[in-house]
Amino acid sequence: MSTVYNFNAGPSTLPRDVMEIARDEFLNYDNLGYSIMEASHRSPEFQNVIDTAEKNIRSLLNISDDYSVLFLQGGASTQFSMVPVNLLSTTQTADYAQTGAWSEKAIKEAQRCGSVKIVASSKDSNYNHIPEIESWDPTENNGYLHITSNNTIFGTQFHQFPKCSPESPLIADMSSDILSRKLDINEFGLIYAGAQKNLGPSGVTVVIINKNLLGRIPKNLPAMLDYNTHIKSTSLYNTPPTFAIYIIMLTTNWIIKNGGLANIEEVNNKKAQLLYDKIDTGDFYSCPVEKASRSKMNVCFRLPSEELEATFLKSAKDEGMIGLKGHRSVGGTRASIYNAMPLDGVQFLVDFMSNFEKKNG
Amino acid sequence: MSTVYNFNAGPSTLPRDVMEIARDEFLNYDNLGYSIMEASHRSPEFQNVIDTAEKNIRSLLNISDDYSVLFLQGGASTQFSMVPVNLLSTTQTADYAQTGAWSEKAIKEAQRCGSVKIVASSKDSNYNHIPEIESWDPTENNGYLHITSNNTIFGTQFHQFPKCSPESPLIADMSSDILSRKLDINEFGLIYAGAQKNLGPSGVTVVIINKNLLGRIPKNLPAMLDYNTHIKSTSLYNTPPTFAIYIIMLTTNWIIKNGGLANIEEVNNKKAQLLYDKIDTGDFYSCPVEKASRSKMNVCFRLPSEELEATFLKSAKDEGMIGLKGHRSVGGTRASIYNAMPLDGVQFLVDFMSNFEKKNG
Repeated sequence: MSTVYNFNAGPSTLPRDVMEIARDEFLNYDNLGYSIMEASHRSPEFQNVIDTAEKNIRSLLNISDDYSVLFLQGGASTQFSMVPVNLLSTTQTADYAQTGAWSEKAIKEAQRCGSVKIVASSKDSNYNHIPEIESWDPTENNGYLHITSNNTIFGTQFHQFPKCSPESPLIADMSSDILSRKLDINEFGLIYAGAQKNLGPSGVTVVIINKNLLGRIPKNLPAMLDYNTHIKSTSLYNTPPTFAIYIIMLTTNWIIKNGGLANIEEVNNKKAQLLYDKIDTGDFYSCPVEKASRSKMNVCFRLPSEELEATFLKSAKDEGMIGLKGHRSVGGTRASIYNAMPLDGVQFLVDFMSNFEKKNG
Repeated sequence: MSTVYNFNAGPSTLPRDVMEIARDEFLNYDNLGYSIMEASHRSPEFQNVIDTAEKNIRSLLNISDDYSVLFLQGGASTQFSMVPVNLLSTTQTADYAQTGAWSEKAIKEAQRCGSVKIVASSKDSNYNHIPEIESWDPTENNGYLHITSNNTIFGTQFHQFPKCSPESPLIADMSSDILSRKLDINEFGLIYAGAQKNLGPSGVTVVIINKNLLGRIPKNLPAMLDYNTHIKSTSLYNTPPTFAIYIIMLTTNWIIKNGGLANIEEVNNKKAQLLYDKIDTGDFYSCPVEKASRSKMNVCFRLPSEELEATFLKSAKDEGMIGLKGHRSVGGTRASIYNAMPLDGVQFLVDFMSNFEKKNG
């Protein structure tokens, strides 16, 4: 078997070092004679795993004790409901930026719970940019402002964030770019992220929440939907997805070992630059996204025709590059280049793109 | 490393064959060059995994097309809310049998949603038995009747089920004994089970629901809490816990290969018999559970003193047997002997118990 580069949008490639450690100790964790998958969630060995995963995330993002860090289930899709159910009072409006399919879903779920205002939207231009923050029209005294920091399907990303306040905090779905760059956590009231891009496997969701929001939570919510439940029991109210949390521990260990977010961001910048430079050189490839809004995680691009795109995907697969098809809702091609995609993989893709253009351009 | 027998109550031991397959193909699933953990949930390879897992469960339990089989997140704790939110109308009462800590939690969540009646309880005798079904006091035209088929903490299990009707169906939390014995699925309206005992790792919940219940589901539920969402999208509304579902596929493959539920039940009966016979012989060991209600999954037993129990647990660990401590809420000792615990493991424990009694009796 030759090397395969996996450009899937998520679940996606994980660091090779992480996968090898997980494989090597799969049957015998820490010389205990059984897998961490078979350990009780109340055992000291698993407690150490979840503590380390939390400590790593706190360390990487410089998170103070003002925030809780939780490991939940249900993905961002569950957070779409949990955020308004917990944090939006009946007397306030929640502001949402509409920047793609995931924000549309977040908006739809919030609308079931209360008053919602769409304060910015790029829907009319098929989500090809993040609306300039200066142009937004926020509600006075809004309950919160919700954004999707990176849009996997349309290939856009926030490169700066709206300024908010403790009373009207910023809430971000960071499923597809958490831990891909440095961040001032204090600009956010709540961040949530499905793990299956930069953190680990699918099946676990990281939530980082400022404790100053907890006073908003109504009484008598279903226990599993109530952030307080999980904060009080430090993510161990019920059996958590132990193996997925273990992989998060390994992945965050790997980020720390590789220089932390400063280095990860530098490498991610290089990878994105390399690929966008290739796309922008000549007119064979094109990127539908405005330059200022381009994602460094999901690079969407088109070829001159759909026929060529189909040939491109087939040839790429033959060369060992998979997951390059654009999302079924938009078509085209897309390279997801999360943390775990090495620079070599992007260089390999870029070289392939050059050759493909020569043959077909 | 010598063999370790893992008697954890969950997450718990998984079949050695399953773990070896998962380890062997951890980095390279089906010769694709990447892990199934790194595959897209929309890929043909993962579709085949989830289809096979569903087909296996349908085959093992002989489930007709009248039922949907779902793979969800959030554990039984989320089902405690989803069941009443989806299925209990404002004009009906839900009946609950109170047989342990998990049923208490299920009752508490249902009480947040509507009218609940406890139709049977063994709380006064510290949950040492399942109340005789003939003595139950059901509500006329109840919305449904909810039971917990096996109680991990107290070591009790239903060995027969109450007869219900399509209008007032039986709903069962089978987290700790699903696929451990033959079952007539048609006696149930809905079954749910966290995977982390007999099915796979924590982080995925199997729900089997009769489609005749779908008409009850109110409009405008949060999408993730609505059974219809998951049925319509065949458990792929959002990114499912792909690796956990893959392990369910392997575990159910293993059950089928080993003779299906008829054989599994026979082995489970032997294991339980062996252990209860040891406990009942002499008066060194004792079982707090009434004979007719004893669980074949979680065998709770006591020694003459708490000091001896502490010594027992330490010695057992030295001999390679872990997870034998009773639940923190009840103390004592407990051997969880789910499907994946081989007869040899129970024999090893029983031999150890005999020797321990000789030394300390």
